[in-house]
Amino acid sequence: MFESCWRKLGNTCTVTFTGNQSLNYFANLKNLCWFSEPKLEEEIMKLHNVVRNATVEGYHIVVGTGSSQLIQAVLYALSDPLNEPKPISVVSAAPYYLSYPEVTDFLRSGLYKWAGDAHNFDKDGSYIEMVTAPNNPDGVMREPVVNRAQGMLVHDLAYYWPQYTPMTGPADHDVMLFTVSKCTGHAGSRIGWALVKDINVARKMVKFIEINTIGVSKEAQQRAAKILEVISDSCSQTVRLPELDNFFEYGQQLLTERWKKLREVVKRNKLLTLPTFQIQYYNFTGDFTEAHPAFAWMKCKEDVDCEKLFRGHGILTRSEKRFGSDPKCENKHAEQG
Amino acid sequence: MFESCWRKLGNTCTVTFTGNQSLNYFANLKNLCWFSEPKLEEEIMKLHNVVRNATVEGYHIVVGTGSSQLIQAVLYALSDPLNEPKPISVVSAAPYYLSYPEVTDFLRSGLYKWAGDAHNFDKDGSYIEMVTAPNNPDGVMREPVVNRAQGMLVHDLAYYWPQYTPMTGPADHDVMLFTVSKCTGHAGSRIGWALVKDINVARKMVKFIEINTIGVSKEAQQRAAKILEVISDSCSQTVRLPELDNFFEYGQQLLTERWKKLREVVKRNKLLTLPTFQIQYYNFTGDFTEAHPAFAWMKCKEDVDCEKLFRGHGILTRSEKRFGSDPKCENKHAEQG
Repeated sequence: MFESCWRKLGNTCTVTFTGNQSLNYFANLKNLCWFSEPKLEEEIMKLHNVVRNATVEGYHIVVGTGSSQLIQAVLYALSDPLNEPKPISVVSAAPYYLSYPEVTDFLRSGLYKWAGDAHNFDKDGSYIEMVTAPNNPDGVMREPVVNRAQGMLVHDLAYYWPQYTPMTGPADHDVMLFTVSKCTGHAGSRIGWALVKDINVARKMVKFIEINTIGVSKEAQQRAAKILEVISDSCSQTVRLPELDNFFEYGQQLLTERWKKLREVVKRNKLLTLPTFQIQYYNFTGDFTEAHPAFAWMKCKEDVDCEKLFRGHGILTRSEKRFGSDPKCENKHAEQG
Repeated sequence: MFESCWRKLGNTCTVTFTGNQSLNYFANLKNLCWFSEPKLEEEIMKLHNVVRNATVEGYHIVVGTGSSQLIQAVLYALSDPLNEPKPISVVSAAPYYLSYPEVTDFLRSGLYKWAGDAHNFDKDGSYIEMVTAPNNPDGVMREPVVNRAQGMLVHDLAYYWPQYTPMTGPADHDVMLFTVSKCTGHAGSRIGWALVKDINVARKMVKFIEINTIGVSKEAQQRAAKILEVISDSCSQTVRLPELDNFFEYGQQLLTERWKKLREVVKRNKLLTLPTFQIQYYNFTGDFTEAHPAFAWMKCKEDVDCEKLFRGHGILTRSEKRFGSDPKCENKHAEQG
């Protein structure tokens, strides 16, 4: 989606590796997250401070091979120390990110188990609720829905960036997950990060990544650090990049334009509806604006197999069933642009 | 360990990434392993053909985030389709690679479970045996030890490269695991690969990596491809690199020198013994030679806490207990050089 921007930036983002660089497993032995590149941690903190979408002070940064690995790391970190005889429940309010059930259950773990839509959850005991804000697939800002005493919350904030949604202030939840792929578009690098309040949870997440992949690719981390640096610079009043004024304003304009076109098409069509988003104060630019998610959650007025209908027109969508949601909904993923 | 070599090679191995490269999740949509870089697959095949340590014809290549991820991918791929009511046993002959028990059990999977030393395994039914050749920690070439009807074998050939051990011919097992970290020393990249005979096993391993990390970092893959290319070139009769004659001969000399020094020190010491290795025909250079493993499996003649003794002299070792083995052994890891 943001490729034209990165092409325009050309060599500003170039990184180079000689044969003798980054040979070692370790990146920072003194650090809790021993495999994270110091430069990447620094740029993550800088970017959050520029965008003001999350508090970093007092948080531990855990770098992962994309946020998928971090989801598994946090499920492990929260469930393993409890030593429960049965797997603890993992829930999320429908429609939920379609990978949650599979990521939770594919190894039939004795530590945790997918328990479906958070709205229907009524078990006693420990549970983990995934709070996706803004939500994938419907773009809505989310809050926890279960709210029981033994709940542990994981905030998946992959899309909580100014190009997608109004920033309503820095988030300061216990565990917050982010990923380069949604922030900058560099999905091929497989770099994500978690901001974690409790040092023991952070330590255990590091342990997961140590066992699972013995750290995270250094090349990908160093390149991600460079990309985040350029994004922060593009927003700065002091450093001015001639090729790019402000990455997030560029992204917001791109998405606003796409949503405008989509709304026009849908308006002419009597069959489909699109969600509407509340206009909110956008503290990043000081304007009032609405959300422009990376995907569109379309509903169909009649009893039609929308997935099939769209496929007939060469458009790939995903049916509501895969998101644990009501029928007569349709999610059109536009994230690949 | 090989850093001086990579420094000498300087820009011969340099790779560069501009901001708009490798944005996408996908690398090769037509390929079974949709996230693997075509250039990396090509260089993997070329290198195996140059070294003749493994057959590639008729095999599927699955790229992973280091061989740790591939171990988990293959456990999943072999166990999940069986649909057994109880987890199937995973074994390896002691002394075994110390990560196997943890990697197998950390998520308390219902698919597979660590069952310890393969020499003591006598259960009926399906099982997976990890055959590590040469073995970590003792450097010995291994063959399966259980040999029952329902056994599935995974050959971990991380150290089956000419610098460590005589090549006795191309291996052609069902599943063979390799890693860049042991072959070239680039541990920080986290790139491994599997050669897999059965397309359904390969497909399921790809599925594991898709769920676990949605593919493998493209930067790391592209850099690994370059490094493997340079290594193949260094062994070629037609392409001559002025900075490096033959990477594996360089590595072999380095390890021979280190083992010579270590054997001299141990000889003067009445407390310790080192393993001896059979002299074998080395089809890579056409000479007769013995193994020079990346680590030394030391035994102590008296009842001494060797780990403590070594630590007192500033040398980090790992006790035999961690490898599921007999007492009075001590493994001194030299893999970090």
